[in-house]
Amino acid sequence: SHNCSMPAATETIQELVKSKGLEVTNPKVAELLDAQDELADLRKEFHVPKNGDLLEVDKSLVKEGDECIYLCGNSLGLEPTGTRKLITEELDKWARRGVTGHFDDSKRPWVSIDADAVEKSAPIVGASPQEISIMNSLTINLHLLMVAFYRPTKSRFKIIMEAKAFPSDFYALCSQARVHDLDPAEAVIQVAPRDGENFIREEDICDTIAKHGDSVAVVVFSGVQFYNGQFFDIPRITKAAHDVGAFAGFDLAHAVGNVVLKLHEWDVDFACWCSYKYLNSGPGGIAGAFIHGKHHDKELLKFAGWWGVELDTRFDMEYDARFQPGVRGLQCSNPPVLQVVSLLGSLLVFEKTSMGALRKKSELLTGYLELLVHAMVKEMQENNPDKKIVTILTPADPERRGCQLSLLFEEQVETVFQELEKRGVVLDLRKPNVLRVAPVPLYNTFRDVYRFVEYLRAGLSKVHGL
Amino acid sequence: SHNCSMPAATETIQELVKSKGLEVTNPKVAELLDAQDELADLRKEFHVPKNGDLLEVDKSLVKEGDECIYLCGNSLGLEPTGTRKLITEELDKWARRGVTGHFDDSKRPWVSIDADAVEKSAPIVGASPQEISIMNSLTINLHLLMVAFYRPTKSRFKIIMEAKAFPSDFYALCSQARVHDLDPAEAVIQVAPRDGENFIREEDICDTIAKHGDSVAVVVFSGVQFYNGQFFDIPRITKAAHDVGAFAGFDLAHAVGNVVLKLHEWDVDFACWCSYKYLNSGPGGIAGAFIHGKHHDKELLKFAGWWGVELDTRFDMEYDARFQPGVRGLQCSNPPVLQVVSLLGSLLVFEKTSMGALRKKSELLTGYLELLVHAMVKEMQENNPDKKIVTILTPADPERRGCQLSLLFEEQVETVFQELEKRGVVLDLRKPNVLRVAPVPLYNTFRDVYRFVEYLRAGLSKVHGL
Ligand SMILES: Cc1ncc(COP(=O)(O)O)c(C=O)c1O
Ligand SMILES: Cc1ncc(COP(=O)(O)O)c(C=O)c1O
Repeated sequence: SHNCSMPAATETIQELVKSKGLEVTNPKVAELLDAQDELADLRKEFHVPKNGDLLEVDKSLVKEGDECIYLCGNSLGLEPTGTRKLITEELDKWARRGVTGHFDDSKRPWVSIDADAVEKSAPIVGASPQEISIMNSLTINLHLLMVAFYRPTKSRFKIIMEAKAFPSDFYALCSQARVHDLDPAEAVIQVAPRDGENFIREEDICDTIAKHGDSVAVVVFSGVQFYNGQFFDIPRITKAAHDVGAFAGFDLAHAVGNVVLKLHEWDVDFACWCSYKYLNSGPGGIAGAFIHGKHHDKELLKFAGWWGVELDTRFDMEYDARFQPGVRGLQCSNPPVLQVVSLLGSLLVFEKTSMGALRKKSELLTGYLELLVHAMVKEMQENNPDKKIVTILTPADPERRGCQLSLLFEEQVETVFQELEKRGVVLDLRKPNVLRVAPVPLYNTFRDVYRFVEYLRAGLSKVHGL
Repeated sequence: SHNCSMPAATETIQELVKSKGLEVTNPKVAELLDAQDELADLRKEFHVPKNGDLLEVDKSLVKEGDECIYLCGNSLGLEPTGTRKLITEELDKWARRGVTGHFDDSKRPWVSIDADAVEKSAPIVGASPQEISIMNSLTINLHLLMVAFYRPTKSRFKIIMEAKAFPSDFYALCSQARVHDLDPAEAVIQVAPRDGENFIREEDICDTIAKHGDSVAVVVFSGVQFYNGQFFDIPRITKAAHDVGAFAGFDLAHAVGNVVLKLHEWDVDFACWCSYKYLNSGPGGIAGAFIHGKHHDKELLKFAGWWGVELDTRFDMEYDARFQPGVRGLQCSNPPVLQVVSLLGSLLVFEKTSMGALRKKSELLTGYLELLVHAMVKEMQENNPDKKIVTILTPADPERRGCQLSLLFEEQVETVFQELEKRGVVLDLRKPNVLRVAPVPLYNTFRDVYRFVEYLRAGLSKVHGL
């Protein structure tokens, strides 16, 4: 019964269903999957909001004290229960020691407050600690990296990026062209899905890069696309960029902590990420940046600051200071202590597992969501054979997606969304009719997924009569 | 008995001393000054470290439970007692509401979390709220502002700055020249004090600007110089820059919350500041940036991001978005919530007074420090007529300095510094022999100043036999 084209996760679920003689839509399936989930205990490491605390919840429909169905970790990850203590420790240190906290004997003197976060972030992106820095915000880091890697000349000046990237990236890259007196309309090339298709074909990316050849200076793509959830083939895009002599950089906002990344092995030149989504560092949390170790012996062009200088001479305030190699040399300012430990709170949870284990659960969770959505559509189509009801914009291939599924509804889904909100489902609506659903393996359960689809089904029947 | 050349603060103290028939070195003077200090209650708004919590303190010399003598607010301001609650509120919101905190009905939805901090920072720098943004870190903001204002051409390409600026600024400005393929040795002009002088003459700054004339693109100075405490004449330097058609920008790290600033009135083009010194926002606290309103109708060149886009269209994610005018258009990323409220904790204390009132006390505090240092030197010179003992590097004119006095000792002061540390004095030593002493009007007392000088006197006698 082995089906070569069926993803491992789907197969696991189908086999379970079959062995127990259940329909996939039976709530017992969720129970069984949760029971065999080795990561289930990690949920306790997070504050899951209660229905009663959500403003949109209708308290006549759900119990106030019950945990909500949080499927929005792609926007803001939940607060780790340990974060508050770490922040309190730093507030205590500040209150009790003032400026002497910079060099005190505690486990985390402020002068190197970022050391732990760097160390623990490195395996999550597949880099050595020397290749990354925890600093600034995502868009700032993208700019700092572009200063180093985007050095347009008359002949080589193009930036290749995905069409409909997250707008901040588009603004950022267009402005990079502008500061070099280039017209973004000429310098920024966007690769789009083909007509009628929902995500970009990798071959179209590679072909575009090859077509523009040695006019390409830098290729910048998302890791995981924010809108449709496509996980780009980072090593393939990187190779295509290198083949034309261009650099390859990635915005990993939706990839980090979500999919397995091997930035060093994949030969990526540079990358940046925020940490408030799957890394659970809190609103506006600190960002990260990566430059491949192979660039360490180069004098990178940079927007310099004292924190990029080698630690042993930084405080000498010498003008001929040595900058640290690679991305560390791009550090400008002393680190924001509260931001750093807020990230650390989450990294300590990541340390209790591995990206490999998380990813395995993630494929199961998202595979289960996909099966339930398909089952719902099938059932609804019995009464509405001409309706498509929902299109999953995200690639069906688990290797080409993270945890998120983006559901495009035929009907406007805003009223359904409100019905979901009333029942304590937290997720993201892109008006008019896309729901981005992100079951996160660190804290979501199979039951969360089951209940979401049940409420969705109920909402669609009630509102659209499906 | 009115002495026209005597600063008002010195005169006040001299009159008090005279009317009570006391020597200025009598500890009763400190008591009297503290008793008549209308801002004395503000000290209660801060956590003043206790001797027992300072690692360098010798517990046989001072009482563990006593508050230390904290004269280091020029490096890291003390923690306001109200900060913890503000941070806890945001951690609670995150725990209880997850992503819905961005738009919830609380007093501070995250989407506009910076609004309060902007509103309350504006009067401190003498700007309208539309002219400032609270974002990023200081060195990053300096770079973003330089992208907008430093547009070198073949003929106009020079940056004029102070010699021995804070190193981060020097690195930053040199790197700005480099990204434009200019040699910093040619593009960055440094104005130094004359031989044998301790601070830069304003006329030398103006003359240098005039001399370089229309080759000057941007003039960047500190507000208050970090090393010698000189408060530059911002309107005068600004005018000199404008006279040659250049822009004038200021790094206000040591000026903000320390001296009265009128950025708008002074016609300053741009400015940036950190908030962890006199604004007490905590280690690595968030920074600020200013662009004068007269530039609002210009399309500024920028490193762009989504947070620079007008709020009403930001979330539409349209590519032809309208950027906000001025410095708000330079915002890249969503604001770091914990950082912002940590600054807010201090701004709420500033609201209980005014920069004018703080400055008045500050002049008294620093004037008192100056008198005591002079008295100490005079006394010591009775036994050592050939010794200078200490030179105050900071201008004697209160209008040309903030709260900090920088004391240059003839003898190496490191051992004396250690004696001070043992007695719970927290201040900054620049090796080998400069002490930067910053009595901060928000939380320092006249008694702090008195006791510091007493310990200093004792240390100098003991260690150097003075
Ligand atoms: C005058 C001045 N400029 C710049 C900086 C660098 O600040 P940051 O590390 O926040 O960029 C400092 C830090 O103390 C400073 O005092
Ligand atoms: C893919 C992507 N890029 C960039 C950003 C902008 O992030 P920031 O505001 O932290 O710079 C986001 C924010 O959600 C994002 O999802």
